[in-house]
Amino acid sequence: METKVNLAEKLALLDAPFQPGIVGTLNDYKLAVVKVDGEFVWHKHDDTDDFFLVLRGRMTIQLRDGNVDLREGDMFVVPRGVEHCPKAEEEAHVLLIEPSGTVNTGDTRGELTAPEVEI
Amino acid sequence: METKVNLAEKLALLDAPFQPGIVGTLNDYKLAVVKVDGEFVWHKHDDTDDFFLVLRGRMTIQLRDGNVDLREGDMFVVPRGVEHCPKAEEEAHVLLIEPSGTVNTGDTRGELTAPEVEI
Repeated sequence: METKVNLAEKLALLDAPFQPGIVGTLNDYKLAVVKVDGEFVWHKHDDTDDFFLVLRGRMTIQLRDGNVDLREGDMFVVPRGVEHCPKAEEEAHVLLIEPSGTVNTGDTRGELTAPEVEI
Repeated sequence: METKVNLAEKLALLDAPFQPGIVGTLNDYKLAVVKVDGEFVWHKHDDTDDFFLVLRGRMTIQLRDGNVDLREGDMFVVPRGVEHCPKAEEEAHVLLIEPSGTVNTGDTRGELTAPEVEI
């Protein structure tokens, strides 16, 4: 049986920015929390949309044709195939939802590419 | 292109409890907000899990083997096939995620069965 998850408590377990922690599943999707602090890497996901909900703080999702500024309570879905690069001036807390197996850095592999870790 | 959505602003557009408003999509899933106030109906979804995130207030998801009490920032996924009945003593605001086409009352059709409405 699933148990309830407090997202703030899970976020407190994360040490580093851009290292998502999986806190549950919804069918074949992973539900993850992540700290955004600084700039991530430009990437895209050709096979899936990418869900962001800001739980605390502010962040920006840079797109090639402009920036999307998000504050607490703002949701944004990056459409599949669209290049994006998240960033935050100060630490922001975010709920991410993507199909299980989706790589956090999409088509751009590098030092910020993270394993799928349950917390 | 998707636009950002402030969930609190969308919730302010809802008049009645238990009438979800769709605020976006994630692949073939609908992203909806709903006000929970009073008791819903017992039902289950045989084909999908059911995602709840409490954005404001408190609510309870009654299960046949016990209650799950949720407060702001708590997430709970009702596994597919599990009977449940949401309720709240006072109005609570909730983010719901389910595959598009999922009926809000699952296998129990009645006066609370709601159409899929975008807001």
